Amino acid sequence: MTSTDVSTYVGELARNARAAARSVAILSTSVKDGVLIAIADGLLSASAALQEANQTDLKAAEDAGLSSALIDRLTLSDTRIEKMAQAVREVAALRDPVGEVIDGTVRPNGLKIERVRVPIGVVGFIYESRPNVTADAAALCLKSGNAVILRGGKEAIQSNLAIHRIVAEALESNDVDPCCVQMVNTPDRAVVDGLLQADEFVDVIIPRGGEGLIRAVVEKATMPVIKHYKGVCHVYVDAKADPGMAETICMNAKTQRPGVCNAMETLLVHESIAASFLPRIAAQLREAGVDLHGCPRACALVSDMAEASEENWSEEYLELVLDVRVVDSLEQAIDHIATYGSAHTDAIVTTDINAAQRFLDEVDSSTVLVNASTRFSDGGEFGLGAEIGISTDKLHARGPMGLTELTTYKWVVRGSGQIRV
Amino acid sequence: MTSTDVSTYVGELARNARAAARSVAILSTSVKDGVLIAIADGLLSASAALQEANQTDLKAAEDAGLSSALIDRLTLSDTRIEKMAQAVREVAALRDPVGEVIDGTVRPNGLKIERVRVPIGVVGFIYESRPNVTADAAALCLKSGNAVILRGGKEAIQSNLAIHRIVAEALESNDVDPCCVQMVNTPDRAVVDGLLQADEFVDVIIPRGGEGLIRAVVEKATMPVIKHYKGVCHVYVDAKADPGMAETICMNAKTQRPGVCNAMETLLVHESIAASFLPRIAAQLREAGVDLHGCPRACALVSDMAEASEENWSEEYLELVLDVRVVDSLEQAIDHIATYGSAHTDAIVTTDINAAQRFLDEVDSSTVLVNASTRFSDGGEFGLGAEIGISTDKLHARGPMGLTELTTYKWVVRGSGQIRV
Repeated sequence: MTSTDVSTYVGELARNARAAARSVAILSTSVKDGVLIAIADGLLSASAALQEANQTDLKAAEDAGLSSALIDRLTLSDTRIEKMAQAVREVAALRDPVGEVIDGTVRPNGLKIERVRVPIGVVGFIYESRPNVTADAAALCLKSGNAVILRGGKEAIQSNLAIHRIVAEALESNDVDPCCVQMVNTPDRAVVDGLLQADEFVDVIIPRGGEGLIRAVVEKATMPVIKHYKGVCHVYVDAKADPGMAETICMNAKTQRPGVCNAMETLLVHESIAASFLPRIAAQLREAGVDLHGCPRACALVSDMAEASEENWSEEYLELVLDVRVVDSLEQAIDHIATYGSAHTDAIVTTDINAAQRFLDEVDSSTVLVNASTRFSDGGEFGLGAEIGISTDKLHARGPMGLTELTTYKWVVRGSGQIRV
Repeated sequence: MTSTDVSTYVGELARNARAAARSVAILSTSVKDGVLIAIADGLLSASAALQEANQTDLKAAEDAGLSSALIDRLTLSDTRIEKMAQAVREVAALRDPVGEVIDGTVRPNGLKIERVRVPIGVVGFIYESRPNVTADAAALCLKSGNAVILRGGKEAIQSNLAIHRIVAEALESNDVDPCCVQMVNTPDRAVVDGLLQADEFVDVIIPRGGEGLIRAVVEKATMPVIKHYKGVCHVYVDAKADPGMAETICMNAKTQRPGVCNAMETLLVHESIAASFLPRIAAQLREAGVDLHGCPRACALVSDMAEASEENWSEEYLELVLDVRVVDSLEQAIDHIATYGSAHTDAIVTTDINAAQRFLDEVDSSTVLVNASTRFSDGGEFGLGAEIGISTDKLHARGPMGLTELTTYKWVVRGSGQIRV
């Protein structure tokens, strides 16, 4: 595309979204749910067409030599399409956050004041994940009354466009502005760059993918971005930990699904328990295929463990690799997390009520846990229903983001002629 | 200052604030309130010294030829210092938002999940207002458990530094890290620019002042900014308005305090009521010294009214000037506000319940009112206590911002050994 074409295309997307946002904001819940059911039905009945479009992406991925893991993530099967439809149905079943009265009061002068939940407006969603994210994001934005501009990864573009066609048909057949959900139809990066400058029309950008994608988005965006760069999650095994519980939690946090942002990347162990605990957990972790790096004191307790470098402590491995450090105290564990952590999710294992409370109070992360696996840091596990992402930012939304986090509020004031004196 | 000096100074401010944030976040309410009472007492007992420092600013302002209005705003008198102390005491009396459990649930697996309110961390507050804002901002940030870096206008620098000395003494005498409240001690703009790049240490910037200041801050800041550029507030007098109520509200919204962001800048009148309403309100407004601009239809109804230019409709006058437009319909009023407004505060005057609800639903502003003056859009009037500012942004905080808006939340999860399956 020429730069003129790009700016025309971006201008259209952005203006269409802004106009659609005004109409989707005031749709009734039943109309929105009707569209979602139509999307779910459409996905199922178009299963063959979706898999055909998916074949084009898969063929290109093979030609490009993508790893078999990536190709697996990209693949749409009957089962996966059924799951995608089911996820959209689950969003339809969630409570509509729009119009909720958050709080309200009557002032001494009789003014009735409410804070009412309203959609944010136009969301830009930039992602590089599996094609099912397209349907999830469309459903969450629609249910929360927002217009959304979707921009998926180029590897999945034919699959994403096919899913988007079903969304567009469901919108049209329910007389809803199809521009409520638009999809960028080209892999041209200039289009993304243009969108990231369209702060007059796009209220927020939510990027989801690798750290590189997210840093590029943050750097270029002129509107607010809600994101997390990475999850360097810690489990701290306190002096007063139940060793059996600590083992179970550590194994789960590291190995149950190592490739996700809420998996453990660093294990901190109190010195008074290290000599008994570390060799045992190290053996178990190694049996599960985990490669260990340690501080000098940890290395002295576990044979053949490589020494961790200063950079290791802030790395998000997303694979079966773990850093291990022996700490002098709870304070040193908290300081370590403040220094090297990513403010995503951190857990303490302890039976000491005071240690637990200090950890919860003083670790400044989006999710802090006592005696539970870091893997629970997730919208579904927290009961939010589907999540649009996880935020390690402090403003607006922190931790798993569900429907509510796709809304803002307005102050609604009802009077009977009051004036200010 | 040389650029090395600037970066050393900014680095110190930012690092000190980050370290202080960790300690102020976990202070008990009674310690924080003790500091606030000590600040209030300190302001009163140092009244003479404050007025002496203020004299230096006033002398410089006179030499610089500042307007008498600006000099008046800058002046500290006994009464104003008493009011400043009283405002700090009122913040002490507000409920501490830190630690509030926003919501919570027990999951089927027994995990107890809470969202707990916590401080944001480090707030950068950049302002050009009266010196009392220094004490207000320090008090609000301290009470909400945040560290703050204050940077006031250069006209008030000696007054601000004198107020800050009292704050610092109150912190020290209560054994609280004095770096909880730091003040930039130089008018050098390079220091502000440096702070706006210190996103590793400063979590949010809140600017307060003219549109020029705020645009400069937004342009340079690499961290989130909560702000409003301006208040182009509308009153829409509907076909079914009570004319007497409409007059009272319009007069109050325009003339009670024209220099503030929630004063009316544009009056929209439905065509069916314009012929009777407009000439009367125009006469009253003119009697109060208001200069009127109008659309052609309004000009046809009011003698000697200048025609409003296209630019006028989006101007924030902050003085006794008003634009007047006759609209065909409620829809046209809503469209006008969407096109020219600033999403700050807009009001409808009507007895028609349907018109009222449509206005409340469809006007996408931080505050929308029915049958009340726009002047009520204010933290104090809404019952928040003191306000740190007003936001027309959609993320995090919208409208008047009190203590709660200076906080975020964390997810606190308590388990008994749960792992994810």
